[in-house]
Amino acid sequence: MSYVALTGGVGGAKLALGLTHLLPADELTFIVNTGDDFRHLGLHVSPDLDTLMYTLSGLSNEETGWGRRGESWNCLESYGALGGETWFNLGDRDLAVHLRRSELLQQGVPLHEVTRRLNSAVGVDVRILPMTDDAVATRVLCETGELAFQHYFVRKRCEPVVSGIRFDGAETAQCAPGVMEALHDPALAGVLICPSNPYLSVDPILAVPGLRQALVDCAAPVIAVSPVVGGEAIKGPTTKIMAELGLPLTALTVAEHYADFLDGFIIDLCDEGLLAQSLSMPMVAAQSVMRTLDDKVQLAQTALAFFERL
Amino acid sequence: MSYVALTGGVGGAKLALGLTHLLPADELTFIVNTGDDFRHLGLHVSPDLDTLMYTLSGLSNEETGWGRRGESWNCLESYGALGGETWFNLGDRDLAVHLRRSELLQQGVPLHEVTRRLNSAVGVDVRILPMTDDAVATRVLCETGELAFQHYFVRKRCEPVVSGIRFDGAETAQCAPGVMEALHDPALAGVLICPSNPYLSVDPILAVPGLRQALVDCAAPVIAVSPVVGGEAIKGPTTKIMAELGLPLTALTVAEHYADFLDGFIIDLCDEGLLAQSLSMPMVAAQSVMRTLDDKVQLAQTALAFFERL
Repeated sequence: MSYVALTGGVGGAKLALGLTHLLPADELTFIVNTGDDFRHLGLHVSPDLDTLMYTLSGLSNEETGWGRRGESWNCLESYGALGGETWFNLGDRDLAVHLRRSELLQQGVPLHEVTRRLNSAVGVDVRILPMTDDAVATRVLCETGELAFQHYFVRKRCEPVVSGIRFDGAETAQCAPGVMEALHDPALAGVLICPSNPYLSVDPILAVPGLRQALVDCAAPVIAVSPVVGGEAIKGPTTKIMAELGLPLTALTVAEHYADFLDGFIIDLCDEGLLAQSLSMPMVAAQSVMRTLDDKVQLAQTALAFFERL
Repeated sequence: MSYVALTGGVGGAKLALGLTHLLPADELTFIVNTGDDFRHLGLHVSPDLDTLMYTLSGLSNEETGWGRRGESWNCLESYGALGGETWFNLGDRDLAVHLRRSELLQQGVPLHEVTRRLNSAVGVDVRILPMTDDAVATRVLCETGELAFQHYFVRKRCEPVVSGIRFDGAETAQCAPGVMEALHDPALAGVLICPSNPYLSVDPILAVPGLRQALVDCAAPVIAVSPVVGGEAIKGPTTKIMAELGLPLTALTVAEHYADFLDGFIIDLCDEGLLAQSLSMPMVAAQSVMRTLDDKVQLAQTALAFFERL
């Protein structure tokens, strides 16, 4: 048996951690959004790959919800004093990852292999794959023009009104080695869409040619966990963007967004009322706000049980 | 009136600091060795340019004699944990300089302009020029083969026996903008060769086509301060290399090394006996071991007075 999970940032990484507590490393593959990747300080930064690595390795900073534990900020402070841009927080320890990644990429090592080496070095043996080794850049169309993802997300704090999102380079990108193999594995028992932002974190993955179709064609059930709880996003701009795109602020909007390949949908207990609504797929309600490790393992368990039922 | 000083690492930077206490910024140009420059962690590191910048800005670590004050090492520690090489000490604050320099170089800003911007940002307004904007790499020929400079100097702690030194790329390098202008300035009152390693730090500068000849042709006097005191180098492998190259371990060997362009030579008080020896140029003896700021200013004063005499 094997499972695949598609994941973006913090929310996805929490559920991913739950899964690793239930499944052996060789039965699990994560396919991770790299649309957020960008060059900064001359380095290749992969925020979602790093969030997953830090979460699974125990290196993450639980207090801030991002970055590394025991972090210091001396490089960024000095860099700012030299006239460099400091709007993107890069801690001294975090920087080591970007330096090592950039160095290996510069040596010609592809991103999926760089990712494997970095994770292996911090003791993470589960398979973590970037959606692609190629450059795909999420671009946010705003009233004031198009913004690079991190400029929208971090620099502008998601304040601009979004009218559209595109994934620059996606048309010609190829899935990273291992991605299609994982989705076509005869032993595949389920594909989980983690509660990441559907528009900013999951859509870039689905935009890599062949990937969405692989989910449509997939023999195993595909289920998603709603990132929308009680009409609001647990974290990040999901519902802000939904409102700006004129979409109903409900978990069902997310299910419909994935309708072409989705076989099941997990909503939060507080949205139990939605179960009564006629949706074209089975739904379950569960405690989906993950505060403790136990919350994460419980939600992962709910997903695995749901796979079995479907 | 204007002065030019050629300098390498720590010893040269000390005398440079002395000079800045005696001369206005616009009367002084430093031409700095970049043969030590190398790529490390994917970044462009310029050790001698940085040593001078840290020394003149007051950012240098007086205790260690290298690197920055108030330094931390979290990035390098984390980088090592990711399988990266840690033999070259890169502190978190120091790293900011390499990041900023590499980023600007990547954007196409030439090294001399990068150097100006970095120094300006930390309040150093005196003109600091790399000897060249081009890549020149000092290579040390050892019994066991050829070593890149930092591999010889830091990684191997200068232990291999040296049979020769070459400057890869020097033949086709061009002096950085400003270098020839400074040496041909009609107001030039003197050129000072700082007490840096003649073979590893000054020779690379002299190897840039046209530079040595400019010193030979120079109307103003050229003087050098001996880095050899009492038959020993104050710091670094100068006399070790002299011994390995079969050269006499005395300050006079250094004067002879520069004989084609040198008009005066400053030796240490403890070598006063050498004044009696017939050298083809004027010599003065001074306290040349610079421990305090006052030592640095005094030695700079000795050099300036010597220029006036010549």
